[in-house]
Amino acid sequence: MRATPGRAGPLSLEALVSRLGGRIAGDAGKIVQQVGSLESAGADQIAFFSNPRYKAQLGDTRAGAVVVPPSAEGLTDLPRIVTDNPYAYFARLSQLFNPDRELRPGIHKDATVAEGARIASTAEIGAGAVISDRAVIGEGTIISAGCHIGEDVEIGAGCKLYPSVVVYHRCRIGARVTLHSGVVIGADGFGIAEEDGRWLKIPQVGRVIIGDDVEVGANTTIDRGAIDDTVLEEGVKLDNQIQIGHNCRIGAHTAMAGCVAVAGSAKIGRSCTIGAASLILGHLTIADEVHVSAATVISRSIRQKGTYTGMYPFDEHASWAKNTALVRHLSELADRVKSLEQRLHDKEKKNG
Amino acid sequence: MRATPGRAGPLSLEALVSRLGGRIAGDAGKIVQQVGSLESAGADQIAFFSNPRYKAQLGDTRAGAVVVPPSAEGLTDLPRIVTDNPYAYFARLSQLFNPDRELRPGIHKDATVAEGARIASTAEIGAGAVISDRAVIGEGTIISAGCHIGEDVEIGAGCKLYPSVVVYHRCRIGARVTLHSGVVIGADGFGIAEEDGRWLKIPQVGRVIIGDDVEVGANTTIDRGAIDDTVLEEGVKLDNQIQIGHNCRIGAHTAMAGCVAVAGSAKIGRSCTIGAASLILGHLTIADEVHVSAATVISRSIRQKGTYTGMYPFDEHASWAKNTALVRHLSELADRVKSLEQRLHDKEKKNG
Amino acid sequence: MRATPGRAGPLSLEALVSRLGGRIAGDAGKIVQQVGSLESAGADQIAFFSNPRYKAQLGDTRAGAVVVPPSAEGLTDLPRIVTDNPYAYFARLSQLFNPDRELRPGIHKDATVAEGARIASTAEIGAGAVISDRAVIGEGTIISAGCHIGEDVEIGAGCKLYPSVVVYHRCRIGARVTLHSGVVIGADGFGIAEEDGRWLKIPQVGRVIIGDDVEVGANTTIDRGAIDDTVLEEGVKLDNQIQIGHNCRIGAHTAMAGCVAVAGSAKIGRSCTIGAASLILGHLTIADEVHVSAATVISRSIRQKGTYTGMYPFDEHASWAKNTALVRHLSELADRVKSLEQRLHDKEKKNG
Repeated sequence: MRATPGRAGPLSLEALVSRLGGRIAGDAGKIVQQVGSLESAGADQIAFFSNPRYKAQLGDTRAGAVVVPPSAEGLTDLPRIVTDNPYAYFARLSQLFNPDRELRPGIHKDATVAEGARIASTAEIGAGAVISDRAVIGEGTIISAGCHIGEDVEIGAGCKLYPSVVVYHRCRIGARVTLHSGVVIGADGFGIAEEDGRWLKIPQVGRVIIGDDVEVGANTTIDRGAIDDTVLEEGVKLDNQIQIGHNCRIGAHTAMAGCVAVAGSAKIGRSCTIGAASLILGHLTIADEVHVSAATVISRSIRQKGTYTGMYPFDEHASWAKNTALVRHLSELADRVKSLEQRLHDKEKKNG
Repeated sequence: MRATPGRAGPLSLEALVSRLGGRIAGDAGKIVQQVGSLESAGADQIAFFSNPRYKAQLGDTRAGAVVVPPSAEGLTDLPRIVTDNPYAYFARLSQLFNPDRELRPGIHKDATVAEGARIASTAEIGAGAVISDRAVIGEGTIISAGCHIGEDVEIGAGCKLYPSVVVYHRCRIGARVTLHSGVVIGADGFGIAEEDGRWLKIPQVGRVIIGDDVEVGANTTIDRGAIDDTVLEEGVKLDNQIQIGHNCRIGAHTAMAGCVAVAGSAKIGRSCTIGAASLILGHLTIADEVHVSAATVISRSIRQKGTYTGMYPFDEHASWAKNTALVRHLSELADRVKSLEQRLHDKEKKNG
Repeated sequence: MRATPGRAGPLSLEALVSRLGGRIAGDAGKIVQQVGSLESAGADQIAFFSNPRYKAQLGDTRAGAVVVPPSAEGLTDLPRIVTDNPYAYFARLSQLFNPDRELRPGIHKDATVAEGARIASTAEIGAGAVISDRAVIGEGTIISAGCHIGEDVEIGAGCKLYPSVVVYHRCRIGARVTLHSGVVIGADGFGIAEEDGRWLKIPQVGRVIIGDDVEVGANTTIDRGAIDDTVLEEGVKLDNQIQIGHNCRIGAHTAMAGCVAVAGSAKIGRSCTIGAASLILGHLTIADEVHVSAATVISRSIRQKGTYTGMYPFDEHASWAKNTALVRHLSELADRVKSLEQRLHDKEKKNG
């Protein structure tokens, strides 16, 4: 949940801790008015430290205050807030100092709204947006300029659609969902059947169902189901340029980094993380709490939680060329090793 | 070709077979009114079975009827239609029960159409669409909300452009072509020449030419040619987020899954299939009927039909790390094996 | 810099050389009126030759004239322009014969421009474009149909935004920048912090800053910084469907082919080239003049200029399956080799 609109003024660490919890070390009266990074924050900004890899930056920072874990409390003399999860704390601080812009309820004169659409009175519809027949838009939801909402779509309360989002007919979107520009929800899944060397289209008559508190990054596409629905459960977070195929189900609170592709009918568990540019093949099942590293192809189901990786190592070009040529001859190499083992065994037997 | 608009009412298997062919086993009078999946179909729905992997689901289905191949005729007692290609049959059934929505000919009052554009009288132009000078739009073609059709573009009859498609100037699109939201046809190819450490742009003056019955998925991009044209032949099917570089030629009835990238000037044959997230490098030629697996990089031309693969295997992270470290030392391993062979050979010679 | 609008008429080689430099061999009076490829140019077109791989096409060409390097001067009898960098020369020729279309200054009646926006008098704003409050648009800049320019955005002079580009609030774009359709500049970076099994959003309050003479291909996304800015320095060239994460810095004159992904906070040097579909992981630093091959995952910083590769080789499916199965057992193979070495060593010691 985001802070109520209205930017927080300058606040002392004491005031921050009374709102957000944590413990102060050093000057509790220190006033800050914005968050910043260790690298570039100034004296009126508060930064955070959690990754020991950035210890040098903690030493050099010109931030006025810093959020640290108990283990790092002694690493700096700056006024500091001590908390077990500095990154989450920083998220709340940043929400406090950077609230969403205020809502401007109403339908822009240059929007096109079908007579049969039902728009909540506190919703905001931007210029050039098109809301089709029987679409329902919830309270406090922003449909920005140039969005297109198809027929019979339902969008819950408190959502934010940035400019140029398309939601195809009949899809359903929960509450507090954010869709960034260029997102396409509910385009046809890739369903084709071969017949005599040509492709017949399978009409895609399922929907996309998106739960509450989901966020979807720019230019990501989520296809409608072929017959049944494609489902994103609550709290799913997708980065940019992700492709979700038809009939997938993505479990609650799973997060995917940019450029991931999930082929049709994959079922992904809850609280998974999928690294950038990975590919999940179709019709697989992935357990809860599975972590897939970047650039990894998941080619069979994963039943056990854990971390799975399949990145091919890069190298200087010449080394790469020499080693990679051998990949194509690995089975011959293995045969040669086997033959050596046999010959040596024979020899040992003979010579004792 | 899709069924004529107007949803088919409930129909008996007998009526279906008289329209679409096939043979009935069991109750020919069984009435169905929609398609469904084995998993979720109800008593008034018809499902299909073709992959033996789903035999258990055939046993458990609550569908009212099912389409099966002759080899599976005995696996169920349900009323069934027997046909050699159940998936294609199912496609036709689904088209029958789920026809395209009816056309609403005319130009929306909120569209912007240049005076010199030629729009067929049965075409449908949505709100916020922009049709530029000298563009030609064919009979029964739908240009949805927010599409932008450039100058001198020609689009054939019976096409469907979903919201927010962009077609750059001078491109040509055949008949019965479907373009999903976010598709960009005819943006500049990536043509740059280095001079004194800077990049000079090569104007991209070719076009994109798209044949009949092509379908292109959401957010896919197809670049215009540098001088000559980029060509997609008839019946090509592209899924979402595919990138086709300038001057490519994609042969008829070739299908590509999501997130494929084809670099410039690649020539791909007819009736190929390219798996998700594969990459075809530039200036290559690929024969007809080549099948490329998912996540495969094609780095040289392929002259022979067949299936080609280059997926790197994933593993539990610790195993992966151990094995992958060795990939960078494969040539040393091969040298050690060679040296062992030599030493053993010497020994065998000496000791007999 | 592009030639001034107004297409050059037919010109003799002599006239071309007097404008663009180079030396003529053969008929200096030869007249050409357009560029063409070796493969398809006609008698009034001029082609170029630089890659020895296309020698056969130089022999067969029906072009009227050709641009060649000194080393190829003797390979043809055609009227020719000899220059050290034929490809750059060709770029200038093509710019001469194919100037940008003329500017049509003014705001289209179907555009939506906020009162507080400042639009230069020579700028061109297309139908359906939305320019938000306090945005600034420079002289001679084209904002095409359906673009959305957010609040407080600044766009320099001589830019060209093709239809359906979105620039989020507060981003800054230099002069002579080209953004192709579907580009999204300044969407939120992927900043989330875990707390009790849920994700908290880190507000993304940095900007995107784009230098002069940058070009960005269709459907590419460049995220705003979390706190500090995401920066593309001058002369950067990005192809289609690239993803640039928050807080990245891309050095001047670096070029990236299609479908590259750069994760957050990566710092890439000047004059680098990144091949198609490569992935640069986050928080890395890459030196100037680094060349990354296609389909390569860069998983640690690169301090030395050079060429780096990590493409996994493809093969016929059966061969691939046999060899790839062994990748998962490489460490066992290495252990077996080590054991053989030991046994043979023992034997040699014993038997002499």
